Amino acid sequence: MAAVEARMEELKVNGTKEEDTVTPWEVNTTSATGIDYDKLIVKFGCKKLDDETIARFERITGRKACPMLRRGMFFAHRDFNLMLDRKEQGKPFFLYTGRGASSGSLHLGHLVPFIFTKWLQDAFDVPLVIQMTDDEKFLWRDMKVDEAKKMARENMKDIISVGFDPEKTFIFNDFDYMCPSFYENIVKIWKVVNANQIRSIFGFTPEDPMGKTAFPAVEAAPCFASSFPHIFGNRNDIPCLIPCAIDQDPYFRMARDAASRLKFAKPSLIFSTFLPALQGAQSKMSASEPNTCIYLSDTPKQIKNKILVKPGTSPVRFERLRLELT
Amino acid sequence: MAAVEARMEELKVNGTKEEDTVTPWEVNTTSATGIDYDKLIVKFGCKKLDDETIARFERITGRKACPMLRRGMFFAHRDFNLMLDRKEQGKPFFLYTGRGASSGSLHLGHLVPFIFTKWLQDAFDVPLVIQMTDDEKFLWRDMKVDEAKKMARENMKDIISVGFDPEKTFIFNDFDYMCPSFYENIVKIWKVVNANQIRSIFGFTPEDPMGKTAFPAVEAAPCFASSFPHIFGNRNDIPCLIPCAIDQDPYFRMARDAASRLKFAKPSLIFSTFLPALQGAQSKMSASEPNTCIYLSDTPKQIKNKILVKPGTSPVRFERLRLELT
Repeated sequence: MAAVEARMEELKVNGTKEEDTVTPWEVNTTSATGIDYDKLIVKFGCKKLDDETIARFERITGRKACPMLRRGMFFAHRDFNLMLDRKEQGKPFFLYTGRGASSGSLHLGHLVPFIFTKWLQDAFDVPLVIQMTDDEKFLWRDMKVDEAKKMARENMKDIISVGFDPEKTFIFNDFDYMCPSFYENIVKIWKVVNANQIRSIFGFTPEDPMGKTAFPAVEAAPCFASSFPHIFGNRNDIPCLIPCAIDQDPYFRMARDAASRLKFAKPSLIFSTFLPALQGAQSKMSASEPNTCIYLSDTPKQIKNKILVKPGTSPVRFERLRLELT
Repeated sequence: MAAVEARMEELKVNGTKEEDTVTPWEVNTTSATGIDYDKLIVKFGCKKLDDETIARFERITGRKACPMLRRGMFFAHRDFNLMLDRKEQGKPFFLYTGRGASSGSLHLGHLVPFIFTKWLQDAFDVPLVIQMTDDEKFLWRDMKVDEAKKMARENMKDIISVGFDPEKTFIFNDFDYMCPSFYENIVKIWKVVNANQIRSIFGFTPEDPMGKTAFPAVEAAPCFASSFPHIFGNRNDIPCLIPCAIDQDPYFRMARDAASRLKFAKPSLIFSTFLPALQGAQSKMSASEPNTCIYLSDTPKQIKNKILVKPGTSPVRFERLRLELT
């Protein structure tokens, strides 16, 4: 704790530049070198994924860590060691990740957690649940339920193409899956979290639609095994490991707190950095700004145009992309 | 409007005594003669159920109004006339009522809306849905989900015994019924109502569990036909008529407002007074205070003890009960 406080103090002293913005809805920095992830680790109170943990992972799974781990693309965690303990002891756990579909197709940035999750599923050989938050997109955007469902469905195809184990993977969208077991966990979370806490975690205002304050429990509920009775029965002592971009951490800080109060297994997390926009490291690839990203549905010609280096300009876009992905 | 304002002004002038308290969670007055229902009509902005409307009801259904209507036990409404229009024109509508089970058995006060609803179902010959809000009770009280479900189940038996048409009645508890169609309507309501509105309607504070602010949409969703696809398909143009005690009005004021925004059929309401506690008209029969009520599960001896007039005391309890119920 003393070390954390010292680092906070240091950041405060050096903190003349504006804070990076990292929320589930916005990722931006004024720095040309991109988000300061070390600062984010301190701010969010998670842990750096150190070499020792990666070495332990390799020992336990008998696999060489994938490039995304070795090169620091997944850079931080909460209680990742507890999942390694369970793997070592042969105790069950599962993987949980997800996506709020806001475009017809995934872009390269979206793919990062899924490619890594597939790799983790292979290494750990455990069940995986993938949540498509079409209800979230309906609440946040000006779209109809059917459009949100359709977008989730289109995105599911891209996600499935990553090659998860079909026997051990359950992919669902909230609108179509909602059922008594899922709802029961949502209501249990609603009982132990109050509106003040939601507001301080997510920054919602009282003018926001009710759904925004109700929704975080819907993203938190799949952390608990009994939301999936067809996989885990009514057990709530099987924890999950969540690979995700670090902007999703607020949901799971809330879920971990709720887990403690409900005496459910606490989720662990492993966090990725953001794939920078083609235009530069100040923002991530964002579906709401199509020119910042390369979509899986882009044609070779479209991709060429997006990364084309015009004569006399710097080849920075292509170089950055090559460095990030190879 | 001018008449309403004049009446408000009059109430203000005469309003030296404290306000009656009528919320979904509390019904109390300082007046020995009980709640001032005329004042409540003005405060809530609903309409008095006048003789003309009752006469029209009798003409259209060909039935003599039941004692609960004739004697003013159901005393106010919102758009009841629109349902009479639909009956006259042969257009479909349905009845919706419900109960939040907080005791193992119903008391006489709880029975009032159900007895009346059965009578309305016979007169109108329409489908009826009955919601048991076990999720609400779990959120508001110190109980487990299973206890809340069990209480709902016990109460269902009492409700079924009232004798609804089994072919046209669907009774459900929220925890067990929650499904995509029901959830979709909840999310739609969440999108058009904000936290400020919920707080001003229900008086919740930011310290209340999140579930309290999320729940009103769960009580409002059965107003919309598509919450029951096995009965109405995905139609949202079939309105419902809700017979209930007037303390439930805040939920349905919110539902009517949401209906307008969502372009769904607006629910109509018909409101009952409260059955006074055995101790006097200052409060209603309340399950949280067992001695104020007679339960369906009470033995003849228990009932006798509750209403027994000891020598030398006034026979007021028994007399009041006789007047209310016969």
